[in-house]
Amino acid sequence: MAKKPPIITLLSDFGTDGPYVAAMKGAILEICPGATIVDLTHDVPAHDVWAGSFLLDQATRDFPSETVHVGVVDPGVGSQRTALAGRFGENFFVFPDNGLISFVQASRPCQGLATVRNQQYTRRAISMTFHGRDVFAPVAAHLASGVNLQRLGPTPQRYTLLDVPQPFEDAGVVHGRIIYVDRFGNCVSNLPVALLDNAFENLQTVEVWCNGRQVGPLVGTYSFVEPGRGLALINSMGLLEIAANQARASEIFDARVGTQVHVVAQG
Amino acid sequence: MAKKPPIITLLSDFGTDGPYVAAMKGAILEICPGATIVDLTHDVPAHDVWAGSFLLDQATRDFPSETVHVGVVDPGVGSQRTALAGRFGENFFVFPDNGLISFVQASRPCQGLATVRNQQYTRRAISMTFHGRDVFAPVAAHLASGVNLQRLGPTPQRYTLLDVPQPFEDAGVVHGRIIYVDRFGNCVSNLPVALLDNAFENLQTVEVWCNGRQVGPLVGTYSFVEPGRGLALINSMGLLEIAANQARASEIFDARVGTQVHVVAQG
Amino acid sequence: MAKKPPIITLLSDFGTDGPYVAAMKGAILEICPGATIVDLTHDVPAHDVWAGSFLLDQATRDFPSETVHVGVVDPGVGSQRTALAGRFGENFFVFPDNGLISFVQASRPCQGLATVRNQQYTRRAISMTFHGRDVFAPVAAHLASGVNLQRLGPTPQRYTLLDVPQPFEDAGVVHGRIIYVDRFGNCVSNLPVALLDNAFENLQTVEVWCNGRQVGPLVGTYSFVEPGRGLALINSMGLLEIAANQARASEIFDARVGTQVHVVAQG
Repeated sequence: MAKKPPIITLLSDFGTDGPYVAAMKGAILEICPGATIVDLTHDVPAHDVWAGSFLLDQATRDFPSETVHVGVVDPGVGSQRTALAGRFGENFFVFPDNGLISFVQASRPCQGLATVRNQQYTRRAISMTFHGRDVFAPVAAHLASGVNLQRLGPTPQRYTLLDVPQPFEDAGVVHGRIIYVDRFGNCVSNLPVALLDNAFENLQTVEVWCNGRQVGPLVGTYSFVEPGRGLALINSMGLLEIAANQARASEIFDARVGTQVHVVAQG
Repeated sequence: MAKKPPIITLLSDFGTDGPYVAAMKGAILEICPGATIVDLTHDVPAHDVWAGSFLLDQATRDFPSETVHVGVVDPGVGSQRTALAGRFGENFFVFPDNGLISFVQASRPCQGLATVRNQQYTRRAISMTFHGRDVFAPVAAHLASGVNLQRLGPTPQRYTLLDVPQPFEDAGVVHGRIIYVDRFGNCVSNLPVALLDNAFENLQTVEVWCNGRQVGPLVGTYSFVEPGRGLALINSMGLLEIAANQARASEIFDARVGTQVHVVAQG
Repeated sequence: MAKKPPIITLLSDFGTDGPYVAAMKGAILEICPGATIVDLTHDVPAHDVWAGSFLLDQATRDFPSETVHVGVVDPGVGSQRTALAGRFGENFFVFPDNGLISFVQASRPCQGLATVRNQQYTRRAISMTFHGRDVFAPVAAHLASGVNLQRLGPTPQRYTLLDVPQPFEDAGVVHGRIIYVDRFGNCVSNLPVALLDNAFENLQTVEVWCNGRQVGPLVGTYSFVEPGRGLALINSMGLLEIAANQARASEIFDARVGTQVHVVAQG
């Protein structure tokens, strides 16, 4: 049987209107010509490590084992921050040491980590402003070609993690926050279905509140309410989402990342 | 000779700023690791099944036989609507039963159709809100891997088709409507060149009207008129298009999808 | 060893919301089914041959030899302008004869050039408005499949080149212009680091001016100044760039393509 082509994915805040993503792909194909390259997204809001971290976690959950994921949201490029590569769950990740790995790290066990030091696996001349092309892409291409994580450099003593809000329960109320708003205005919270299942006897009879206003009951999907009306559901990520049927929940509830959400049993 | 890699294309209204397209690609590569995945577009206006249907038809006309096309514009996800897979012309299509296939169905003979029922070819746990990842992508990957259409489920008795406007001729005037406006403001009508060729002796001497205003004669291409001026031409889809040279015809003629167009022999 | 799959890249002003890019990819895969297709960008501003030319040069510098690059920014499609294919440096380029090749031609030696005439390598029926699908994509797919440049048609006697501004030195002052503004508002000039190295004894002690206002000293990277402050650096393209730390230099300095930049030794 033919060997499966290695898969390399890319996430960045570079946008797709400039030469930057193409340069990374050229650098990858130079080293690993048979690679299947997949764009996760290049539309992370500029310099928003937090949004990038959430998306890097969610967008990489369905890939085959041994996939190599590259994340480049890197406002500190050229400063002292180091480049890291690690194995989390069944996949490899290459990323700046600025917290971009936080949501991935929270969802999957770390199986190995290296600080990128070995110049055999980066471009010889490393620009101060474009490590995507000169460091992250070449390292990913070498990992995809079979280079061992340990060859990249030493294991770091510690690495940067963001302060991701944790849900909590208090007096029968489950408290969480919005952690992502998608292009439809759907507002994703940090409340996983398992937590809610554990806290309430019957998810059909809870009340969901967002930004101090009642959203309504938990329903199965968007079309369970009239067009334009808000609703709450368990989304495809297994998270409580504040949504609306063919309308923008973010506008209806004036919600954004950080907005408080709580769930309580119906009075 | 090496076998050609199977081709799977994706069309959706997911945008490219979230994790949804990546999740579909991961699901595909898990099942069919050697697939060539092509994005048709993910910028169909949100929930706009009609625009999605037009684009799905136009964007898939140039692919090799056996290509598998996945269309996901699916405001009714999680409701009772079923998932369908069919062979139209030389290609396969996987799509929700909401009319998204309408323009494809009008342009190519249906060679087989199945309601997706066999859970062997979908994800075991199907979310209520993301059938793109859990149903459409896996089914496409299995079709691309050689699974027979018939194995997916029974042939549906009927399926949803949109009410696509048909051109008509009345007293020497050919009447049509705008069915797509592209990013340059070019307005594509539902009038095929063959219909016009049949209705008029000489296409060089017709008058084209849009929204009750005369566009001008039919010309060969944009640069046949001064920059900023409107024009009519037969576009690359073989359809009458209201355009302008380096300007937006949609603004010049206040035209949008549904706007009336008519063609008449010069007085 | 398995043969490396041929690589074909695409640059255009088609955007990714219509059927045009997909049609080009279908046409390529019909001829060269194993090709790895890479999008450089499809968000060149509409009809902006100049921006397209800059991006085509910058986005193609990191690809393996024998890569075939297709550039389609083509306001004159269907007019008398011819289609060209050439070898510049180690890569092939297919493009309209309207100046789109200018920045590539300035950066890499031309090793061969052909006017596309041989209808064996284009679609038989060529539309007046979509040479991307009917001419450029098929020609690229044939080049990637091994067809010789010479088989496409005769060498043109001359071809169109844009009037790209050249930097100059006058009385100890180096004068240049902004030639590209990226999505972060970073303003790229036409001043290469080698020219500045040659003109000044110490790049650490020059003053950079943009639009008649002092930018500040040349620093290593964005984070060398406070957030919101402007700066000048040598960017990943090896060009002097007017930037800002987590802010838009284009707004701070009211700069756009064509804006004057000059560099002078510190008083």
